[in-house]
Amino acid sequence: MMTDLQIAKTVTLKPISEIANKLGIDTYQIETYGQYKAKIPLSYIDRNKANNSHLILVSAISPTPAGEGKTTISIGLSEALNQLHKKTTVVLREPSLGPVFGIKGGATGGGHAQVLPMEDINLHFTGDFSAIEKAHNLLAAIIDNNIQSKTVSLQLDPRTISWKRVVDLNDRALRRIIVGLGGTTSGVPRETGFDITAASEIMAILCLAENLTDLKKRLGNIFVGYTYDKQPIYARDLHAEGAMTVLLKDAIKPNLVQTIEGNPAIIHGGPFANIAQGTNSVIATLMGMSHSDYTVTEAGFGFDLGAEKFFDIKCQSANLKPKVVVLTATIRALKYHGGANLNDLTKPNLDALKNGLPNLEKHLENISKFKVPAVIAINKFATDSEEEISLIKAFAKQKNISVALADVWAKGGAGALDLAKEVINIIDTSTSQFEPLYQWNSPVIDKIETIATEIYGAEHVDYSLKAKANLRKISSLGLDNLPICIAKTQKSLSDNPKLLGRPKDFIITIREIEIAAGAGFLIPITGDIMRMPGLPAHPAAEHIDINENGDISGLF
Amino acid sequence: MMTDLQIAKTVTLKPISEIANKLGIDTYQIETYGQYKAKIPLSYIDRNKANNSHLILVSAISPTPAGEGKTTISIGLSEALNQLHKKTTVVLREPSLGPVFGIKGGATGGGHAQVLPMEDINLHFTGDFSAIEKAHNLLAAIIDNNIQSKTVSLQLDPRTISWKRVVDLNDRALRRIIVGLGGTTSGVPRETGFDITAASEIMAILCLAENLTDLKKRLGNIFVGYTYDKQPIYARDLHAEGAMTVLLKDAIKPNLVQTIEGNPAIIHGGPFANIAQGTNSVIATLMGMSHSDYTVTEAGFGFDLGAEKFFDIKCQSANLKPKVVVLTATIRALKYHGGANLNDLTKPNLDALKNGLPNLEKHLENISKFKVPAVIAINKFATDSEEEISLIKAFAKQKNISVALADVWAKGGAGALDLAKEVINIIDTSTSQFEPLYQWNSPVIDKIETIATEIYGAEHVDYSLKAKANLRKISSLGLDNLPICIAKTQKSLSDNPKLLGRPKDFIITIREIEIAAGAGFLIPITGDIMRMPGLPAHPAAEHIDINENGDISGLF
Repeated sequence: MMTDLQIAKTVTLKPISEIANKLGIDTYQIETYGQYKAKIPLSYIDRNKANNSHLILVSAISPTPAGEGKTTISIGLSEALNQLHKKTTVVLREPSLGPVFGIKGGATGGGHAQVLPMEDINLHFTGDFSAIEKAHNLLAAIIDNNIQSKTVSLQLDPRTISWKRVVDLNDRALRRIIVGLGGTTSGVPRETGFDITAASEIMAILCLAENLTDLKKRLGNIFVGYTYDKQPIYARDLHAEGAMTVLLKDAIKPNLVQTIEGNPAIIHGGPFANIAQGTNSVIATLMGMSHSDYTVTEAGFGFDLGAEKFFDIKCQSANLKPKVVVLTATIRALKYHGGANLNDLTKPNLDALKNGLPNLEKHLENISKFKVPAVIAINKFATDSEEEISLIKAFAKQKNISVALADVWAKGGAGALDLAKEVINIIDTSTSQFEPLYQWNSPVIDKIETIATEIYGAEHVDYSLKAKANLRKISSLGLDNLPICIAKTQKSLSDNPKLLGRPKDFIITIREIEIAAGAGFLIPITGDIMRMPGLPAHPAAEHIDINENGDISGLF
Repeated sequence: MMTDLQIAKTVTLKPISEIANKLGIDTYQIETYGQYKAKIPLSYIDRNKANNSHLILVSAISPTPAGEGKTTISIGLSEALNQLHKKTTVVLREPSLGPVFGIKGGATGGGHAQVLPMEDINLHFTGDFSAIEKAHNLLAAIIDNNIQSKTVSLQLDPRTISWKRVVDLNDRALRRIIVGLGGTTSGVPRETGFDITAASEIMAILCLAENLTDLKKRLGNIFVGYTYDKQPIYARDLHAEGAMTVLLKDAIKPNLVQTIEGNPAIIHGGPFANIAQGTNSVIATLMGMSHSDYTVTEAGFGFDLGAEKFFDIKCQSANLKPKVVVLTATIRALKYHGGANLNDLTKPNLDALKNGLPNLEKHLENISKFKVPAVIAINKFATDSEEEISLIKAFAKQKNISVALADVWAKGGAGALDLAKEVINIIDTSTSQFEPLYQWNSPVIDKIETIATEIYGAEHVDYSLKAKANLRKISSLGLDNLPICIAKTQKSLSDNPKLLGRPKDFIITIREIEIAAGAGFLIPITGDIMRMPGLPAHPAAEHIDINENGDISGLF
C-alpha cells in the first residue's frame, strides 16, 4: 500500500496562482511562498459575500488514538462538492510539529483526500507557528526582564505570573521548570513552564482576531500576573503588544494551498481542541466564505470538544451561522467504544459495534442542542464489513438522521458524492436555526455546568481548591462574561480517558482555570489533561528521514 | 534625519526574479517568499566558477557598543564595485531577533547602504532561525524523552548532558534552569539552560555544511552526554538526525534579496562572532562566488573575533582563499579606545584619536599574520573632522597600508568608489598568500595559546578546573584535532570588556570548553561572556509598533 506521501507525489501540482484565480483573487495580490503556497491579504475578506456562503462543520464521534479522519472527510467532501459544480473551499487548521514528531503523524488528510504540498504543510509551512511562538516568548522575556530590572520594575510578584513559555514540540520535561538560576545577573528564580504552541493564548488570539488592530488590542489585554500590591498587570503595561503584533504581521494572513484534486484549501491557525479552542482562524473561515458558495471546515477531536467550542466561542465571536454538521464516524471507533480491543478493530464484530452506538447517539443529541441539522459520514475503511455498515445505516434511519458512506481515502471526491448530495439536500431543504448552548454573560460556574452536564453528560462539576481560588480571581478581574474553553481528554466524553462509549454517573473535576483575557475566554482544566504533551517511547521522529536528493520518508 | 526604515521605503524594489537573472539564475528555479525574497537551490553552486571569484572579507577594529558599520561598508563596497562594472555580490549573515528587540537593532546595514526588504530580513525572514531552533529543541526533547523511558533508555546520565535548548531572543532567565519537575509523568529533574539561537551548534553546522548529506552527518555527530557507564552518546544514537535534517531542508538553501541599489545580496546563517563562529554559511559564500567576479562578505565584531574564525575555521573547512581584508574603522571608536567618553564621541578630539590608534595597529598586525593584504575603510560619520581623518590617513601611510574614506551611509555605492578602487588595485597587483594561524591537528592548548597570544596579545592562558576537566574529556573523545572557536567579549582584545585600546600584560581565562562535535570545533569560553544575552532595562521592543495599515515603526 502506498503511503500518503507517495500518493501525494503522484500528483502534478498546479501553480498557486491558478488556485487563487479559482477564488477570484488576482495572482499579483497573493504573497507566494514557493510555487505552491501563498498568503492572502486580509483585504480579500468580504463580509457581505461571506454571509451568503453555506458553512459546513465537520466533526466526529469520540476518537480512537489514531483519529477518525475529520480532515480527510472535510477534504473529500470539498472535492465532491466541487465535482458537483458547487464552488467550494475547504478551510482547515495547520498541523503542529508535536504530533508530527510524536505519535499521530501529519494532519493533512490521507490517501486520495489530502492537501498539498503535504510535506511543507506538515513542517514549518509559512512560519505561522514559529511567529506565534516567538511573540509568546518575547512577552515572557519582557516579563522576566521587568522583574530583573532595578529601574523600571512594575513590582510584579514573580509568584503570581501565569504567563508561561511555549514550544511547538512534545517536550514533557518543560512542563514544570524553574528559571532564573545562576545568581543576580541571570534573573530572579521562579517556577514556570512551557505549553505546546497549539495551546498558546496567542494562537487563540490569532484565531479569533478579525484584523491587525483587533489582534494588537487582544495582545495588549493578555493577563500576566499581579504586583505585590495585588494590582493586575497586562501585556500593555509592559508595552509589549506593538512588537508582538509586528512579529505576527504575516502570520495573521491565511494560507492558500490546494487539494489533491486541485481545489482551493485555506489552512490557518492550529489550536488543539482538547487544550484550546480547536478550530482554524476566523479570518481563514471568512476568507473561504468570501470566495465560495460552500465552505467546509472542521473542529478538532469529538463533537464534545472542538465543535462545542466552534459553536459557543468562534461562531458567537464572529457571528457565523453554520448550516449543517457532518459527524464523522468510523466502524473501528464505534467497536472500540463498544468494548473491542484496539488491536482487534479490523475484525468484524457486530456486538461491539452495537455496544458502541451510544457514543454516536450522544454526539447526535449534542448537535441537536445547537439547532443545526446533522448528517453522519461513515469514513470507510477497507476492513469494514457490509453488515457493520448496514447496522449504522439502520441506526441512523431509526433516529431519522441522514447518513452516507464516504470512501475518500481510496477514491477522493468521487468517494464522497453521496455525502455531498446529502449535505446539499439538507442545506436546500431545512433551515438551520443555529443557537449557542449558553450566553456569554451567564455566571462562570453556570456556563461550565451547562457544558459538563448537557454536552459531556456529567452528573455535576467539582472544583479543586485552586480552581475555586481561580474563580474568585476571575471575578475580581471582571472577566465573568468570557466564554468557556474546557481542556479535557479527547478519548472520552468524560474527563477520564478510560470511560469509553457513553459514560454516565460521572463527575467532571476542574483542576484549575487559566485566564486568557486577550483571547477572551477561560480555560477550566479537567482531569489529568496536560497542555504540554510528551513523546512516546518510540517517537515518529526516529523514522523520519531525507536522502541526498531531498526526498523525505516517514512523514505519514 | 530619516530613519533607515524611512530611507528603505523611498526605494521601489525590483522583483526578485530580476535579481536572480543578474546572477544568471533562472527565474523558475528560485523559490520565492513573496515578491522580494527567494531561496536558491544548492545545485547552483559551481565550485569551479567559485574558485575564480575574488573573495573580499570586511572586518573591523574593536567596536563600540553601537558597532562600527561592517555590514554597511560591505553593502556600500558591493554597490561601488557594481558601479565600476565589476559583477559583485554581497554575502551577509541573517539578523537575530535578540538584538532586534534588545539594544542593537537590526543588522541590514543603514542609511543608503541597506539590504531590502529590511523589515522582513530583520524579523522572521524565510524562517531559517526558527528551523534551526526547532531542530535543536527536537533533539533536546528526544534526549529528555529517552531519559524518561523505561523501555528504550540508553542509560544517559542526566548530569552529563551538555545539549541545552535555544531560543532566538535575549532571555537571561533561561540561562540556567531546572527542567523535569512535577513528578514521574513529567520527566527527570535536571539542570540545563537555553542559549540564543545564534549560538546553537546547529547554526554552526548549517553554516559549515556543504550539502544535505554533509548536514545530516554533522547533525548525527553532535555530542550529547555520557551513559552511567561513561560511554559517549551522540545524536545518531538517538536516531534524531533524520528528522532534524528534514526540519532544515529549506533552511540549508541560501536566501537572495537585493541591495538598496538593486544589486544581489545573499543572506544566510547568523552565528554571532563573540559566542560562535561569526560568519555566514559556506553555502552562501560559495553561491555568491559561483555567480560573481567579486564577492564581498563580513565576519562579526572585531578582527580578533569574527575574522580569526573566518580564516581559521571557515576558510580551512571550505578551502577558501580570501584576497583582501577591508578593516572598517571609525573615528568615534578610535577616540573611544583612546579614552574619550561614549557620550563625547561626536566632539573632535585629536589626542583621544591618537591614543586609540594602537587598537587599529594591533588589528592590522593580526591581518598580516594571515598573509592577506589589508585596506582601512574609514566609515565616515557627519561629526568627523578633517583633522581627524587626516590623522588616520597619515598613520596608514606611515604603516604603508591602503586607506579610503567611505561615506556609504549618506551616499551609498557612490560613497565607496575610492575604497572599491583600492580593493580592485590590491587584488590586481598583489598576490594574497593566505595561510591560517594554526594547523587543526595541533594540540588543543597550543591552538588556544596561539590565538590568545598572537591575536589577542595575551601573556598566557589560564584554565579553570572545569576547563581542565573539559580538556581531558575532549582528549578522551578523540576530538583534539578540531579547530578552536573562542567565546570572548567583543569590547576588548582581551577577555575583560573594560580593557580598551591595545591592552597588554593580561591573561586570558578559560572558564569552560564546550564541545561542538557536529559543527567540528571546540568553544573555549573566556571571562564573563554569556551565550544567552539579556535585555536592557528599556528593550527596543517597547518602541516597535505597527499601525492598522501594516506600517511598521521603531525598527532601525
